[in-house]
Amino acid sequence: MVILGIDPGLAKMGYGIVSVDEREEGKALAYGCLRTPKTDNKGKRLCYLFDSLMELFEKYKPDVLSLESLFFNRNTKTALTVGEARGIALLAAGKHNVPVVEFTPLQVKECLAGFGRAKKDAVADVVKMELDLGDEEMPVDASDALGIAICYYRMGDLE
Amino acid sequence: MVILGIDPGLAKMGYGIVSVDEREEGKALAYGCLRTPKTDNKGKRLCYLFDSLMELFEKYKPDVLSLESLFFNRNTKTALTVGEARGIALLAAGKHNVPVVEFTPLQVKECLAGFGRAKKDAVADVVKMELDLGDEEMPVDASDALGIAICYYRMGDLE
Repeated sequence: MVILGIDPGLAKMGYGIVSVDEREEGKALAYGCLRTPKTDNKGKRLCYLFDSLMELFEKYKPDVLSLESLFFNRNTKTALTVGEARGIALLAAGKHNVPVVEFTPLQVKECLAGFGRAKKDAVADVVKMELDLGDEEMPVDASDALGIAICYYRMGDLE
Repeated sequence: MVILGIDPGLAKMGYGIVSVDEREEGKALAYGCLRTPKTDNKGKRLCYLFDSLMELFEKYKPDVLSLESLFFNRNTKTALTVGEARGIALLAAGKHNVPVVEFTPLQVKECLAGFGRAKKDAVADVVKMELDLGDEEMPVDASDALGIAICYYRMGDLE
């Protein structure tokens, strides 16, 4: 099966596409970070994110979207902006009838690094090991997104 | 010019379309409330909202989207869900190159009813008077959305 992991944000949206076999061995098909410039208006930025995500859905045909949710102690303004970016990801999934599962940052860290207070680096290290990516350079939003995808097959139900 | 007012939400999204002439006299072209059932998944609900808004943009060709923003003292969970619905509205505007202005609920009440602690009813009464709607029945989300549209020409710059 193919899992699309997304770490949602307006300025930077990380994505990671992982295919996994019945032995739960994962392989990264693609990953990256979609960036939108602050100088563009929000409508234009969200359009770019939506069109890019729609292309990923069409190209890789994921079976599930694994989406990072938010700590509920973050401030309201952050939640509103992250919510707008999440809405775009959820819409793209809805347009392709792809089910969505959500994991909090805490769950991702616990699942990958073994404990919730692990550093960002620890997640990236586990992601690279798990997917055999050696010491490939990648933005933290991309390794986070791959981590969210891995979370799905480690914690979710593989049919 | 034509103004689309939106009171965003996932379960209920109010909309109101107002045309206004150079004497600042407004006329309601359409209004209503888009409802999505809790039994549907979020992707499907957002799809319905997005497709419906896209139809409104195509039918009424608004010059501007007047969007309600959030009090920043609301809780994070509310902000996240409202953000998702707002993202859909902003994306529909972006797809049509329509600029967006935002007003807080406080600004809308102050603008329409004269003070920020006015009751919901007071806003609906002013909306109906302003747009000559008599005592037409309408959902509060629709009268709020018309109020947000009126706010734009009362407070914004009419080119």
